[in-house]
Amino acid sequence: MILQDLTVSLVGLGQMGGSLGMALRSRARVKRVIGVAQRPEALEQAKVLGAIDEGTLDLASGVKDADLLVLATPVREILRLIPEVGARMKPGAVLTDLGSTKVDVLQTMEGLPLSITAIGGHPLCGNERPGLEATSVDCYLDAPFVLIPRKGTSPESLAFLESVVVAVGARPIVIEAGRHDRLVAAVSHLPYLLACALVSAAGEAASRDPLAWELAAGSFRDTSRVASSSVAMAGDFCLTNREAIAGAVRSFQTILSRMASELDSDPAAFLSGLERARRLREKWAQEKEAK
Amino acid sequence: MILQDLTVSLVGLGQMGGSLGMALRSRARVKRVIGVAQRPEALEQAKVLGAIDEGTLDLASGVKDADLLVLATPVREILRLIPEVGARMKPGAVLTDLGSTKVDVLQTMEGLPLSITAIGGHPLCGNERPGLEATSVDCYLDAPFVLIPRKGTSPESLAFLESVVVAVGARPIVIEAGRHDRLVAAVSHLPYLLACALVSAAGEAASRDPLAWELAAGSFRDTSRVASSSVAMAGDFCLTNREAIAGAVRSFQTILSRMASELDSDPAAFLSGLERARRLREKWAQEKEAK
Repeated sequence: MILQDLTVSLVGLGQMGGSLGMALRSRARVKRVIGVAQRPEALEQAKVLGAIDEGTLDLASGVKDADLLVLATPVREILRLIPEVGARMKPGAVLTDLGSTKVDVLQTMEGLPLSITAIGGHPLCGNERPGLEATSVDCYLDAPFVLIPRKGTSPESLAFLESVVVAVGARPIVIEAGRHDRLVAAVSHLPYLLACALVSAAGEAASRDPLAWELAAGSFRDTSRVASSSVAMAGDFCLTNREAIAGAVRSFQTILSRMASELDSDPAAFLSGLERARRLREKWAQEKEAK
Repeated sequence: MILQDLTVSLVGLGQMGGSLGMALRSRARVKRVIGVAQRPEALEQAKVLGAIDEGTLDLASGVKDADLLVLATPVREILRLIPEVGARMKPGAVLTDLGSTKVDVLQTMEGLPLSITAIGGHPLCGNERPGLEATSVDCYLDAPFVLIPRKGTSPESLAFLESVVVAVGARPIVIEAGRHDRLVAAVSHLPYLLACALVSAAGEAASRDPLAWELAAGSFRDTSRVASSSVAMAGDFCLTNREAIAGAVRSFQTILSRMASELDSDPAAFLSGLERARRLREKWAQEKEAK
């Protein structure tokens, strides 16, 4: 299927869905993007922003013409929607999603009739701002975009979805769901929990001495940034990735305890650890920039 | 003393010293800024950037004419320099510093002859980039700038330093050293250690599966940013603030463990905690922006 003939339906018009619509229209130049949302104002705003060609509040009518259907809601809503849209999609259409965890999504996709092509998706981009105000046509540029085919997905269907991912500027990475969830627990869900715990710890310090908020500056701002994320979105990825997150938190606590103990009793080891972390972080940032 | 007659010497020309020089020259319009550094190239570069009027590699000659002497090096170097410059300053001159911890600095300042006016300083601004490349005339704009007078500092001397702080665009906050160190442990030193521990945890995940680095995106980038800080600078503030940092780490670990346990067995409490953190963080960001 060629992109210029494609009708894409987006269910959910937040930052990720809205930005994808913009990129599908202005970069991939698909035939038509249909938006499905719960509020008429969201559809209006999405049209004004150029994120969709047309919109509807009715899921069934928004889904029936789609060649590609993208679920762009929080994960637990995706899980609820999969069987519902699966029953309404036209034959040969492809279903995907933008959820931040994939084991539960793939498990739910496996429950669909074999006639439906379903491929889990997770673009690693976006920021903590919710809603259409935060959309950007460049959101997906150079972003890793994980794709996870359900059992029996044809190579052609996967290649088709990869071509869409490339057309919006992202880089497809095809891996298995369990591996995905373990990896994002370490590099995405853990940072989110750390940010929330840091804000709570600062809140406790500020309850003893309110000047704490006054002295919080750049390091607090950046380290805590993702604590501002929508809990509808972030709560869902946590609740659907509990085991991997528990493992990531344990690893982190072990490392932090070791650092605290070295700070107390082995300054040379403590400083070496800081220097190793600095180099690792700089190497990562340089490689990321080079992409 | 009026600003236009002032000769200021800056010992150390990194991001903080260099940016202060720029602001002293172009905002406060002092008479003369003398830079003291260890490498001739740093002096040259600082002149080109407009951070100093003249420079020297010789501490004694850089110090002797200063009305205001600012130590802008890592904290342990500040501790070493205080007695050395104290013996060379002209009568009536004011000594301050930009170090991130203040108990040890003030203790060392108390060892100076009573004829020397010494006031600890800590501007809460700057970022993780080291050196003169990272300087900015706007670095100090609207930044909280903590000032901590030594015993016996006259109100006039403190008011003078406050006027300098205001003239470079920052907001003076006069508090006691122990209080300062406890507060920055919670809102500045803790975020730094979390960033380093996060990078180390990601490094462990990547040693099992290198794709971890590939999937690390915006939340990892921001939460880990300050792990890129110079260890010469950050190691020093950790080593001179061990007790307060140990307390901040303990509070943090208690909170993170509670979150992990709620994620496992009390989703409603877990989600409420995320929402409380989100609101606290948004409130802080809005109040910060309003300043």
